[in-house]
Amino acid sequence: MLIPILFLVGVLSSQTFSQEFKTAPPPGLRTDGGIWPLPQNVQYLNHSRSIGTRRSRPIQIILDENVNDCDILKFTRKTYLRKWLLPFEDEASANDSTTLILTISVQDGCPKSDEFPQQGMDEKYSLSVPKEGNATLEAKEVWGALRGLETFSQLVFLEDETYYIQSANIHDFPRFSVRGILIDTSRHYLPPQTIRRQIDLMAQNKMNVLHWHIVDIESFPYISTKFPELSGKGAFTPRHVYDPKTVQNIIHYARLRGIRVMVEIDTPGHTGSWKGQPGFLADCSSATGEKVAPNILDPTKKENYKFLAEFFTEILEVFPEKFLHLGGDEVEYWTEACWRQNPEIRRFMKLHGFPDNVTALEDYYFSKLQQLLAPIAQERRQVFWQEVFDNNIPEPNSIIHIWKGGSKTERAESLAKVTAAGHQAILSSCWYLNYIHYGDDWKTGGINGDYYYCDPQDFNGTDAQKALVLGGIATMWAEMVDSTNIEARLWPRASAVAERLWSDPLQQKMPMKHGHDFMNIDAEWLLADFEHNQLMAHLFVIMNGYCLK
Amino acid sequence: MLIPILFLVGVLSSQTFSQEFKTAPPPGLRTDGGIWPLPQNVQYLNHSRSIGTRRSRPIQIILDENVNDCDILKFTRKTYLRKWLLPFEDEASANDSTTLILTISVQDGCPKSDEFPQQGMDEKYSLSVPKEGNATLEAKEVWGALRGLETFSQLVFLEDETYYIQSANIHDFPRFSVRGILIDTSRHYLPPQTIRRQIDLMAQNKMNVLHWHIVDIESFPYISTKFPELSGKGAFTPRHVYDPKTVQNIIHYARLRGIRVMVEIDTPGHTGSWKGQPGFLADCSSATGEKVAPNILDPTKKENYKFLAEFFTEILEVFPEKFLHLGGDEVEYWTEACWRQNPEIRRFMKLHGFPDNVTALEDYYFSKLQQLLAPIAQERRQVFWQEVFDNNIPEPNSIIHIWKGGSKTERAESLAKVTAAGHQAILSSCWYLNYIHYGDDWKTGGINGDYYYCDPQDFNGTDAQKALVLGGIATMWAEMVDSTNIEARLWPRASAVAERLWSDPLQQKMPMKHGHDFMNIDAEWLLADFEHNQLMAHLFVIMNGYCLK
Repeated sequence: MLIPILFLVGVLSSQTFSQEFKTAPPPGLRTDGGIWPLPQNVQYLNHSRSIGTRRSRPIQIILDENVNDCDILKFTRKTYLRKWLLPFEDEASANDSTTLILTISVQDGCPKSDEFPQQGMDEKYSLSVPKEGNATLEAKEVWGALRGLETFSQLVFLEDETYYIQSANIHDFPRFSVRGILIDTSRHYLPPQTIRRQIDLMAQNKMNVLHWHIVDIESFPYISTKFPELSGKGAFTPRHVYDPKTVQNIIHYARLRGIRVMVEIDTPGHTGSWKGQPGFLADCSSATGEKVAPNILDPTKKENYKFLAEFFTEILEVFPEKFLHLGGDEVEYWTEACWRQNPEIRRFMKLHGFPDNVTALEDYYFSKLQQLLAPIAQERRQVFWQEVFDNNIPEPNSIIHIWKGGSKTERAESLAKVTAAGHQAILSSCWYLNYIHYGDDWKTGGINGDYYYCDPQDFNGTDAQKALVLGGIATMWAEMVDSTNIEARLWPRASAVAERLWSDPLQQKMPMKHGHDFMNIDAEWLLADFEHNQLMAHLFVIMNGYCLK
Repeated sequence: MLIPILFLVGVLSSQTFSQEFKTAPPPGLRTDGGIWPLPQNVQYLNHSRSIGTRRSRPIQIILDENVNDCDILKFTRKTYLRKWLLPFEDEASANDSTTLILTISVQDGCPKSDEFPQQGMDEKYSLSVPKEGNATLEAKEVWGALRGLETFSQLVFLEDETYYIQSANIHDFPRFSVRGILIDTSRHYLPPQTIRRQIDLMAQNKMNVLHWHIVDIESFPYISTKFPELSGKGAFTPRHVYDPKTVQNIIHYARLRGIRVMVEIDTPGHTGSWKGQPGFLADCSSATGEKVAPNILDPTKKENYKFLAEFFTEILEVFPEKFLHLGGDEVEYWTEACWRQNPEIRRFMKLHGFPDNVTALEDYYFSKLQQLLAPIAQERRQVFWQEVFDNNIPEPNSIIHIWKGGSKTERAESLAKVTAAGHQAILSSCWYLNYIHYGDDWKTGGINGDYYYCDPQDFNGTDAQKALVLGGIATMWAEMVDSTNIEARLWPRASAVAERLWSDPLQQKMPMKHGHDFMNIDAEWLLADFEHNQLMAHLFVIMNGYCLK
């Protein structure tokens, strides 16, 4: 029961729904849709074939010779077959014969054990599931094979105790190279198993960058080997930390799923939890002289640069990812409350020829930061939140992460400016998934109201400028999010972002036709949905974990 | 990172927070607060004592002679000790001695195995945890002992590997006799384990009525032994059902936690899924003659009353609860689209002397329904949604469930009218928990914006009228809710309702002082909270499951 005005909408759509879609569709009708995000090229052969019963082992996956021993593919094969695709395999009889063989070949072979997915990773693949005979999956790199295996899994479905597969020929590749989720482990701690689970779900949505906003004002859960006091003094409790082993475990877990782990070390603001490094934080007071908790570093002290150089040396050793996110957002409050009010810092600014100019002091800081990183981060690309571009002078090769933009116009202007200056860009403005709304907010939700429709290349600019847009990152800021609710808040809402960033916008259709909310619709209900459009079919797949267990 | 205007609020409060409350408080400081909902009378002795280490068995619970073999208490003792209170007991060494004994005595002894909690159940208890020596819990009925044991568990806390208990004397009882949660298993199916888990959480919040809105338009998951075709044709799939064994299991599970299971069989509207009973639904068409999916029964057919009598006979056998919710809400759309447009039904109305009067036909239906229930539901009380009171003539002894009310005034008027007519009332208008909002919506959320502050007795009426208000039920309508998100949406938001319905409003203080959002704050964070007000302390307790595992 709802309040009347909402009620009628709800009931009428439910009414249509229950009338038309109550019984599960015959398998033969499941001939299109079904893959999320929508592939670049897909030809359905209008044919589904049964491949075995619920308690059989209908699928075998063979790895081509040069990847036969590839850790990533062996692991993924096991995950799909045993966990996501055929979870009842244990119930299978030993005598069951395989009905379908999928052969995977990878041109470039297997990455070495110390090779990680990086910018430029090739995710292209070709998948053929013919009407008869066996299936093939071909890719240049192993990362493409992972994406293809996910697609393959989405062609398989269980209906009335029988497994079916849809026949199709698919040539697929992502539109954008950066398709990410930001997790924030400072506002609330996320247990490693929660992070790992989100990585699984990212892989099922063909996303490839986990942006790990690992520390912030509220807590410093990262255990630094060189500076253990950072977490010692900055973590919520000694149990709310990520030790080196856990961090490596998460990075390797992500690698096996073709996902990069981009860490963010946000300075000079947002550093309130860095209390474990003596002298690092600036003394702060308000204009009326009252003490304010420090949330910005002191950029005037030499020791702080020495410390940062050592700390970043460690970070670069720990995280193999070649994008290093350096933050740089939202410093205005503290440059006023801390830098401008602090007599030592005022003296420093005067001495350096920019009295009272906190922006110049910021420039000074970022310039020093980039200097200290130069020798230790040679192969890395620096990523900054947009304020560093707006107010300061990031190095030309750095990537600008756009998060502001209360309107489409504002967002488009930022994209145009950043790319006109020759910077590559990543967009987050329209995908603040931490904000929630009742109803189908995957369509019109978010701050900008065009959640699913937000296009990172929709701005006035040349083709060259548009090519500088690397993609987007959906953010799950954790002021109100912890392990008890992150998953329900993130999925399947982030699936909308995943499709926007992977698929060809000209081919994408409005995925929902009958007004039923996709958010939190459950996999069980999807079984009862006749229409089976892409989004629903996908949800069935990404929710297999719930549905088939 | 948030949009600037929100950001500053968030950061400043976080700032204060991180400055003052980062380290766990010394146990001795935990001397007040801590029990949720706030007890009617609590005297803290300003003393916490350590009772053992994390790996010990510090507490023993002894049942008094007349309840020594009581299934409910034995079960609850086990649940608290092994699961909620001392989850590490398995790690304890066999030689550990008990530090604290709690003796439970229950004046009226143990309910018989076929006795269920009912309206009038006595939930009063007295708990004494002295500074030294053992603790006692006294209650008239076993239900009070359950509430007291919950309170006892909230006095125990774990800090730095050591268990402590706060000393206190508590005399407690609920303000309202009905403190409920509505679950809706028609819009989305909820697996039994999800329902059971919500029952646990209800018990931890001292709530006592599970309002089970079991069927509606979207699906009919209840398996009727007499009419299996109802779920056969009306369930989403054959797997999305509650069979008799499952229903009994849920009722008994709730009984062991002092929770009543009030089923709702909503007629004459909201019946679109009752397709398994031939001829039950009215033929419907719009004013322009188009067919409309039927969502209302045909009140003109004698067979339908015969069927309803048999069906309700079964329902009354299945559900021991003496409140029977008969729905009756939101029929206007279908009385127009189905009853008024249907030639047979028009003829019937004319024949019975109320041509074109669908409200009179509704009266006719409710009068027949009450007639057929009279012989089979003698000891039951009927509950109706408020429209039946507004438009029809419910029997004087029936209870009116108020759910409308876009404003406090409207809600208060309904309460005044219903109680002036001598009906008992239950309020839900201000507690539509299915609606979500970003931020601390437990304070100001809900349709009416006074979520925590909504008081069911806040209307113009005599003391006698106010005494007719039985309590309230927080509703979790499931248009957008399934097993993946119900818990994050329901808890701890429903804890605000739980306190409103249990505690003395004159003693309740604004529970949150520093602007941090209580919704979804996690238990781990609470450990780091110095202030430890009631709400936070409670959340620590209700989230023990997450925190201590």
